[in-house]
This record gives sequence, structure tokens and C-alpha cells, in this order.
Amino acid sequence: MDAFPQVEAYIKKHAETFLAELQALLRIPSVSTLPLHRADMERALAFLADRLAEIGCEHIQRVSPREAAGGLPLLYADWLHAPGAPTVLFYGHYDVQPPDPLDEWTTPPFEPTVRDGNLFARGAADDKGQFYTHIKALQALMQLHGKLPVNVRFLIEGEEEVGGESVDLYVRQNRKALACDCVVVSDTAMFAPKLPELVVGLRGMVYAEVEMQGAARDLHSGLYGGVAPNPLEALARVIVGLKSPEGRILIPGFYDRVATPSEEEKAAWKRLPFDPEAYRANEVRAPALTGEPGYSVFERTWARPTLDVHGMPGGFTGPGSKTVIPARAAAKISMRLVPNQQPAEIYQQFTAAVQALTPPGFRSTVRLHNSADPVMMDPGNRFVRAAVAALQRLFGAEPVFIRSGGSVPIVALFATTLRSPVVMMGFGLPDDGLHSPNEKFALANFYKGIGAVADFLLRLGA
Amino acid sequence: MDAFPQVEAYIKKHAETFLAELQALLRIPSVSTLPLHRADMERALAFLADRLAEIGCEHIQRVSPREAAGGLPLLYADWLHAPGAPTVLFYGHYDVQPPDPLDEWTTPPFEPTVRDGNLFARGAADDKGQFYTHIKALQALMQLHGKLPVNVRFLIEGEEEVGGESVDLYVRQNRKALACDCVVVSDTAMFAPKLPELVVGLRGMVYAEVEMQGAARDLHSGLYGGVAPNPLEALARVIVGLKSPEGRILIPGFYDRVATPSEEEKAAWKRLPFDPEAYRANEVRAPALTGEPGYSVFERTWARPTLDVHGMPGGFTGPGSKTVIPARAAAKISMRLVPNQQPAEIYQQFTAAVQALTPPGFRSTVRLHNSADPVMMDPGNRFVRAAVAALQRLFGAEPVFIRSGGSVPIVALFATTLRSPVVMMGFGLPDDGLHSPNEKFALANFYKGIGAVADFLLRLGA
Repeated sequence: MDAFPQVEAYIKKHAETFLAELQALLRIPSVSTLPLHRADMERALAFLADRLAEIGCEHIQRVSPREAAGGLPLLYADWLHAPGAPTVLFYGHYDVQPPDPLDEWTTPPFEPTVRDGNLFARGAADDKGQFYTHIKALQALMQLHGKLPVNVRFLIEGEEEVGGESVDLYVRQNRKALACDCVVVSDTAMFAPKLPELVVGLRGMVYAEVEMQGAARDLHSGLYGGVAPNPLEALARVIVGLKSPEGRILIPGFYDRVATPSEEEKAAWKRLPFDPEAYRANEVRAPALTGEPGYSVFERTWARPTLDVHGMPGGFTGPGSKTVIPARAAAKISMRLVPNQQPAEIYQQFTAAVQALTPPGFRSTVRLHNSADPVMMDPGNRFVRAAVAALQRLFGAEPVFIRSGGSVPIVALFATTLRSPVVMMGFGLPDDGLHSPNEKFALANFYKGIGAVADFLLRLGA
Repeated sequence: MDAFPQVEAYIKKHAETFLAELQALLRIPSVSTLPLHRADMERALAFLADRLAEIGCEHIQRVSPREAAGGLPLLYADWLHAPGAPTVLFYGHYDVQPPDPLDEWTTPPFEPTVRDGNLFARGAADDKGQFYTHIKALQALMQLHGKLPVNVRFLIEGEEEVGGESVDLYVRQNRKALACDCVVVSDTAMFAPKLPELVVGLRGMVYAEVEMQGAARDLHSGLYGGVAPNPLEALARVIVGLKSPEGRILIPGFYDRVATPSEEEKAAWKRLPFDPEAYRANEVRAPALTGEPGYSVFERTWARPTLDVHGMPGGFTGPGSKTVIPARAAAKISMRLVPNQQPAEIYQQFTAAVQALTPPGFRSTVRLHNSADPVMMDPGNRFVRAAVAALQRLFGAEPVFIRSGGSVPIVALFATTLRSPVVMMGFGLPDDGLHSPNEKFALANFYKGIGAVADFLLRLGA
């Protein structure tokens, strides 16, 4: 007997309550990168612990393996009363990106607001709205059947946006206690509003900061201009030396391990409904796309490594003018990696390249903010097949297998440390504005996501 | 009869009061670039008006020709009761640079503190401590003789660090009312602690801001890295395209009007006591000096134009990491100009070069913050000769004629609009740290400066 129609009715009946709960969670400004929000992190964690307790989870624990070093806590919970059935580990992250620039938000980032069927708030899609579907799916199943069709574990961390060191340590130290048959992560987007996708590849990352030191003190550009080393200029030369105008990264050895996608995979990408010009005009919204000639948009964003500058602190950045040659300045630079690049090796190559590009008169130092392995998954296992069926049911279309250009470091960790297949079942949309002002999550996808997760579990337990 | 010994005694007797008054002025954080400090500007102006009234100045006026447009007020005063004697206009500026980075100050920037014979405070040398010597010199003469040997005018402005638009307008609109035979500006440094200088050349300036727009919104570097235009990277390419690694500016036409210093002037510079290696190690304090090969330090800082980047607002510049490709970013860029470059022409060449260097996928816009003409003076006139004698008396050495790499836009204005020779009689020292943390002014030079100004006036009135 198909148990899904009951689930669907339950979601419909509780739609308003589910939304109100998510809004309450989104009101908590759990910005992990800003120490100011430490108390908000605890509030978000406590809120989630209550919700997990309500639906019958057990062994609910606040875990903080790096507390002494300033680490942020994570939340563990489980329900393990389905003997013989598989164990599914649900992962999510309750931390969010900083909301700046604040003045570009139509409604404030931490006052979740529904407009045109979308819920606008920082964290709506990344990742609170997405992982909350897991909790509500389990609630539906538990309320309807008094039990779950599979065993489940929850792992909800608070450092996804700042490197995830705590969850990394926790998973490495608790490999056996976290044993599972598959991991479900909902932190990606659908290919299009009516086309679900399953992500089988993720780019890795190395995020570093280059500090450039010129003179020992700030100098007046009138008195010293012509002899004083200018660290912002030196950083400009380093940046230009790291990447060609066409987007080719010039770091020696950088491409040595880059794996070319199979002809089959590239052919599948060509069949995807996609108009590069519409993507440029409506999604990226730029005068032109950039990047390596000879590679498609999918190749450039999924299968090719990149290098980007995120900010250059130093000197005078306020309104007006100041004639200072700063003593030092910095550049925050990240590289996205593809199979089979290795973050540690890339970081070494990057550091060596920066040193080689540092002009006379300067001292440069590089430090690592965070890194993640690139990931590739086998699309043929039973968990992926169950996800395909569930997504097809809810969204009315067969999901496409794609990669994502983003990095979900935890996926690499689960794949390598827990040796579990990771099902990246995302309910976001391409224009959700992750990390940008006016981040949103489509309400329809919130509810369909809950249904898809429930259906997925019913199929696994059948 | 030589009236100077009496003046010297008067200064000695009132040394403590003079210092206390200057400290009171330095305690007022009159930072012109920050709107937050508007009230402090008025406080500084009122303080100076009181001091000028005390010494017998007349027609003391707060003038603000650009008040409606946010302009900051300037102070006019005069004493015109020496018929037949020349008229000297004393110029100074009561505004100061922002004090950041605050954490690099040994004592707070607006708590003037004496250490080792130096007075440490923002504005101590630039320019409060320096122009205050004018006021105290007049006080000495007035108290001793009941009158002054020459006619004097004061013009003390509050926008020197932000472009000086108000004083520019005021001088242009009041050419006749400001008629004078010479202008005295004390806003430069001595060549060395025992070697006074007279500045006969100043570099001009064009200070602009380049805004680079890529996509219409901030984008996630994982999802869009490889296709999204990165404005910080584009700015790096523009900066590198504007200036060679050797320091040659690559803007077409930029050097067309550059005048080469005379062989005589260059020979005099070669005779100056100067050790480039000590200058690098002790003053600039950098691993190496930068700049055009084949030009001496004096040529590079006095007679060659330069280009510097002062700050690059945009993206994420806080602590930690954020994986954003910002929609837009900016670069604050200034050029120092030499005779006979023309700011308006250079600004046009700069704008055209930036547009030409802007890569596909971006829109750049350039706006002007401020500009100043380069200046060259005739060292042979009677005012310069009187200044030479006064400086030699006070500092015990014949002053050297040099140029300064800095820009004092008002000097160009006085030279061109009032058609008056400008005597740049500076009492600062090369290591005063203008615009930097721990700005200082040597107390000995404060008192000798007062003496030199008084002696200069006595000679002019003789």
C-alpha cells in the first residue's frame, strides 16, 4: 500500500505551522563568521534540539569538540528502532552567511517575509529552509505511523560557512558511532523550477588570505609616492599573475591532476535545457560572462577549477579620499577545485606562486582559511535510485544528474571518512541568491521537499 | 636696532602657555573627511577666532561659501595698520586627516602627549602645530611693540585634506579683498633637524575613484566561479595596466608635458646630505625602495609624476572568509603631477585609460575626488630672501631650496589667482608621520618656527 497520499495530506494540513516554525528559526541571526553572534548560535541550536525532541528523536546532544579553540557547537540526534532497515544520516547546517550589504535587502535579512510564494531571509535556502524539510518529513511519518521506516541520525552543524572544523573533527573521532548506509544533504538547488536534480559532483576549495607588507608604516603618497612600495599595487600584480585575462590559472602545476569529464557526462550536460544568453542576462546579470574559451558554462562552473578574489582589506576604504600608501594590505582569494586536485597540494602551489610573484620591496605571507576536497559520486546505487523516484513523484519530472560548482566540504568528509554514499537532494532554485542580499526559498519547494524526503524514506524502508 | 632678542625672550617666557594652547587645539578632532566631526570643525574654528581676537586681529569672520553643499567653514582675519609696509597673507588649515588605524597609536591621536621633545597628536605637524607659529609670532610682536611691522591677513581653512573647494571659491571670489604681497604657508618639513629648507616646487594631484561593476548582484563563488565577472580582479588588471612594475605610468600622453628639472637644480639636489640606504631603512622602512630606474630618490619624489592606489572598497573585508564575487568594487587612485602637467588633461587621460583597460563583462565609472596644479616658484624675490635670513638665524644653517612631492593645492591657487609669491616655510621634520599613526611635531621646531616667522616679519618691515 502506498503510504504517500497520507503524508501529502499531513503536510498540507500542517503547512502553516511548518512555515511559522521555519520563520522562527530564520529570525535567529546565526552568522558563524561574526563573534558577535555566538549567543544566536546557541539559540538556533536549542531551537532545533527542541524540534527534534518533539518528533521523538533520542540521544539529542549539543557537541562542541573545539569549544576551547572558539569552535561552534553542533547538534546530534538519532532514532534507531527500525532493525534490519538501512540507517540514513541527515546533515544540515544552522549557520548562515553575513547579511551585508544590508541596504540592498528589500526586507531585513532576519525578518523572514513571504512575497510571491517565496520566503525571503538570510539562510532561507542556505541551509535552514532546506534541512528543515528533513525534520518535518520525519514528523509526518512519525505522527502517521508511530515509527519511521528506517533508522535515522541527525548531524546539524554551525560552521559550514566558516570551514566546518568542528564537524570535521567530530566525524573523524566518531566514525563508528555515526555508522550509516547513506547520508542525505539538502544544500543544493534544483536545475530549474520543474526539473529536480541529483548532484553527483562537487568542486573542492582552498580559501586563503595573502597579506602584503611594504613599508613598516603608513606613508603619505605625496611625500613618498615614487619610492614607497604600495602593497595594494603589489597585490594587483600578484592577482594578475595568478590568472590570465581569459580565466586560465597560471599557478605552476595547478592543472596537472585535473580530470576531464567523460564524453557521456558532457553529452548529458549538452542535453540539459539551458540558454547561456538568458543565463547571462537574467541570472548572472552581467554585460558578459567570463571564463576559459572553449569550455561551456557547465564545464566552467562544474568541471574546471577557478580562482576568485573576494575582498582586499587595507588602506583607506571609507567615503572620500585619503592620500595614504598603506604599510600593508591583504587579498582574500579562493580557488575552486575539481577531481582529482588535492587541496593541500594546491595550497602549496598557490603559496609558492604568490611568493614568486611578490615584487621586490614587499614581504608576502599566505594563510589558509579553509579547504575542501572535490567529490564525485556513483549515480547507480539504491539510495540514489530511491531519491530519483521520490523527486520524480514530487516534482513530476525525472531528475537530471549534474555537478555543482560549489563546495560542501562535509560531503567529501562523509564520502571518505564514513564511506557512505551521499545523496545531494536539493530543493533550492538557481536564483535563490545564496550569500547575496534578498536570499529566498520557494515555499512550494519547502513543502515538496518535505514530501520528497518522506517518500524517499518510505521507499528505502519498503 | 635688532628687535629679535626681545622676541626670543618673549617666546621663552610664554613657552608653556603656547604649548598648552596648541594642545587644546589638537584635542579637537577636526577630521574634515568624516561628517561625524562637523561640530568639531566649528569648535576648532571658534577656538582660533578667539586666539586671533586676543592678539588684536580685526574683521574676524567665519566664512562658508559652500555651506549649502556641505562645505566646511574657513576663518578670515586681518590687521592692516602698517601703511607703506607690505601685506603678508598667512595661510593654514585646521582640518586633519582621519586617525585610523587607531590601534597603531602609542597614545590616542586626540590626546596630545609630549614624549622625548616631540608633541604626538593627529594634526601636530599637519598643520595645526605649524600654522599656530604664525599666530604666536604676531602675538609676540604685538605685545612687545603694540603694533606689527607689516600688514597681515589670515586665511585658515577646514578642507585642506578633502580638496579645499570652499577656500578655492572664496579666494577666486575675493581676489581684490585678499590682495597681498606675499603668502606664507607652513605646511612642509625641514630637510633635516638642523637644515631648514624653502620649498620652491610642489607636485600637483588628481585623486579619482574607479568603480567597477560586474554582475548586477553579489554572486556565490562556488556556483558562479568560472563565468561571473569579478570586479576586484578587473580592478587589478586596470591597476597593472596603468603602471609598469618599474613605476612607469602607462597612461597614453601622461608624460607629454613633464618638464625635466634644470641641470643646476639637479646638481644642487646631488649636494644635499642624503643617504638613500638610510632613508630606506630608517624612514620608509621597507625591504626596498620602488620607482623608476635611472632617477634619484629626489627626482622620483619631487620631479617625477606617480600613481598610487589608496584603498579598494568592495567584497568582503572583515575577519574570516566569505565566498562572494561582489557585484561591484572600487579603487581609490591618485596621481601626483609635476610641472607642466595639467590636472584636467591628466584626469581625462586617466579616465580614457581606465575605460580602455576595463575588461569585457564590466562597466567602469571614474569620478574625481580632487585635484591640484603643480607649482614652481622663483627663489630670488625679497620675501624668499627674508625667509632665508630668518631661517638661517633660527636654525643656524643656510636653508636649501628643494621641492616637495606633496600637493598643497592652495599654493597653486595663491600663485595663479592672487599672483603672489608663496613662501613655503615649513617647520616639520621628515619623520613626522603625516597622515600616519603617531604623527608628531618637534617642540623645538614649534618655538623656533615662532621666532622665524617673527624675524621674517621684522625684516620685511625694516
